[in-house]
Amino acid sequence: MELNDPAVFAARRERLRALMAERGLPALLVTHAANRYYLSGFELHDSQCNESVGWLVILANGHAGGGDLLMTDARFTDAARRLWPQDDLLIYGAGKHKAMAQRLTERGVRALGFDPKAVNVFDYEALREHFELTPASGLVEALRRVKEPAEIELLRAACGLNHRIMRALPDVITPGLSEGEVAWTIERMFRDAGAEGLSFPSIVGVNQNAALPHAIPGETKIPREGLVLVDAGCRLGGYCSDQTRTFWVGRDPSERFQDTKRLVLAAQKAAMEVIRPGAKIADAYHAARAVFETAGCAAQFTHSLGHGIGLETHEGPSLSPAAEGAFVPGMVVTVEPGLYDAAWGGVRWEYMVVVTQTGCAAL
Amino acid sequence: MELNDPAVFAARRERLRALMAERGLPALLVTHAANRYYLSGFELHDSQCNESVGWLVILANGHAGGGDLLMTDARFTDAARRLWPQDDLLIYGAGKHKAMAQRLTERGVRALGFDPKAVNVFDYEALREHFELTPASGLVEALRRVKEPAEIELLRAACGLNHRIMRALPDVITPGLSEGEVAWTIERMFRDAGAEGLSFPSIVGVNQNAALPHAIPGETKIPREGLVLVDAGCRLGGYCSDQTRTFWVGRDPSERFQDTKRLVLAAQKAAMEVIRPGAKIADAYHAARAVFETAGCAAQFTHSLGHGIGLETHEGPSLSPAAEGAFVPGMVVTVEPGLYDAAWGGVRWEYMVVVTQTGCAAL
Repeated sequence: MELNDPAVFAARRERLRALMAERGLPALLVTHAANRYYLSGFELHDSQCNESVGWLVILANGHAGGGDLLMTDARFTDAARRLWPQDDLLIYGAGKHKAMAQRLTERGVRALGFDPKAVNVFDYEALREHFELTPASGLVEALRRVKEPAEIELLRAACGLNHRIMRALPDVITPGLSEGEVAWTIERMFRDAGAEGLSFPSIVGVNQNAALPHAIPGETKIPREGLVLVDAGCRLGGYCSDQTRTFWVGRDPSERFQDTKRLVLAAQKAAMEVIRPGAKIADAYHAARAVFETAGCAAQFTHSLGHGIGLETHEGPSLSPAAEGAFVPGMVVTVEPGLYDAAWGGVRWEYMVVVTQTGCAAL
Repeated sequence: MELNDPAVFAARRERLRALMAERGLPALLVTHAANRYYLSGFELHDSQCNESVGWLVILANGHAGGGDLLMTDARFTDAARRLWPQDDLLIYGAGKHKAMAQRLTERGVRALGFDPKAVNVFDYEALREHFELTPASGLVEALRRVKEPAEIELLRAACGLNHRIMRALPDVITPGLSEGEVAWTIERMFRDAGAEGLSFPSIVGVNQNAALPHAIPGETKIPREGLVLVDAGCRLGGYCSDQTRTFWVGRDPSERFQDTKRLVLAAQKAAMEVIRPGAKIADAYHAARAVFETAGCAAQFTHSLGHGIGLETHEGPSLSPAAEGAFVPGMVVTVEPGLYDAAWGGVRWEYMVVVTQTGCAAL
């Protein structure tokens, strides 16, 4: 199920080299974990946010068979050796920056592009002693925004599992269970079905709790009549899913719930009708918002319309009013309008869609 | 169970202000998630490693009741309002750095200390337009290294749950199950017993896989006779546990397993006898290593002896040969010597210990 053919990673490095050539970059330092994995297959996750398990250096004069440097520490020697030519591997100890400089100087590399959002000031200062550093953001992200067919299949598989869980949820969300218990049941269902884990901590929000975009499932009990918002996703073969549904528990959905849900679904549909190759990304947001504006409730739509999704739950492009650029076939994004009222609750509905040659399709 | 009294966080900020005064810092920017939580109770985790959910600015002239700034985005408005005085809250949108500068300039703050390992180059460049920036690492970490009594109780509770799971494991680790299945069972046991989650992805390694310090539990089956290394921990009330045991499955533990285990336990005991207030941290490492040196197998001890543990699995102090400083009552560290041979397997044994007034005690 995993996309772990070395040729796939090598091909991505070749595409990156083409982008580097456009910018005249002799080498690019890759520190962000998902970017590192995307280009090498080496470790999708760092062990903690403040503990990198390794860096890559992609060389303009490298090639699919070798030349690019994979750096890691001794814990990962074995994992790295399985993936990388021995000559291009650097196992560092305490003197990481110096060892890196030595190895790259031997190869004639004295200048590095780097992502200012993915390199901390400590590393920057240490690298600056050895290299000429040039800010170069978004190169790997530009590749990752447009998914390969095999990536889309993995996203479809993760999303398919998510659909199964969401369909089963009406039987799970029963009065008397707490939000936290429902969240743990959802996680067990994902894992028992083969997911590696959740793609993010699930949100299970009852009534007013559904109005908090970042509700932590707590002790609140599922009521006999009321709304429950569930936002949950899994990771399968490395790729993330993300779906939201808002359920009514009981036999008598309130008029407000039904009206709000109808509006949210209409906004979602309007946005999906806009999403096609060449359409401005920001216009998807505006299309959803226009539905709410007509209904006089746009102030209750308090977040962006969605986000790209792939090796990370949140990646480019963001479907915000400030988004630049246009949709391209192969992009996979969430479309998740919502309406919230702290005194009442909220309704959000979220699909993952892939941009096709002619429009978009829900995964 | 959680340590969520606002007075606790306020008292920590007062202790931090004393450290800031020593260094002449008018204000300290706190960006690292666990540091933010330690000082405020606001969000222990960022939503992704590249997505901060908020920053704190601690002011030298702030006070327990107010003055320190909590910055977050609109998703967390509600969570922040429950914790923080409205006047000291900044809900930012796109212009985060500028809004922050405006608010702090009003309060006469034009200079900020920051942690170079916890601020990326992009934020640094943006902040530099508004503030005089001074590197100031390790202040919050210095507080976090020495646990408060209530923190020790939470660590003891997490560790107690871990002991229960480890005691139950001989019945779980049965021939024919895969490493991955055992890992998932362990996670379910932790969660069913009330843990919020794992503190890190569990390691379950059969025979040779036990020699990989970073083995991902896979398809390898538990054998009828053989060794299985389990390194697993949970998070309870926000605090982490971390324990390793190496089990023999079957009736006939090999001599090599028994000899190796005996040596590892002897090294652990030797290290624990060294750990007391005033003893050099590096000497704990050396004491364990000396046991292996006498036995002629020190080259098979390939990692440091342990690490501090608390709100993060890995925090200060590191029990490495390069460690500086001495043990202090209230430090909680792991003691986890191991011996590895890629062709055979490995044995690691890990306790969490608290430094007491006279020595140390296993939690």
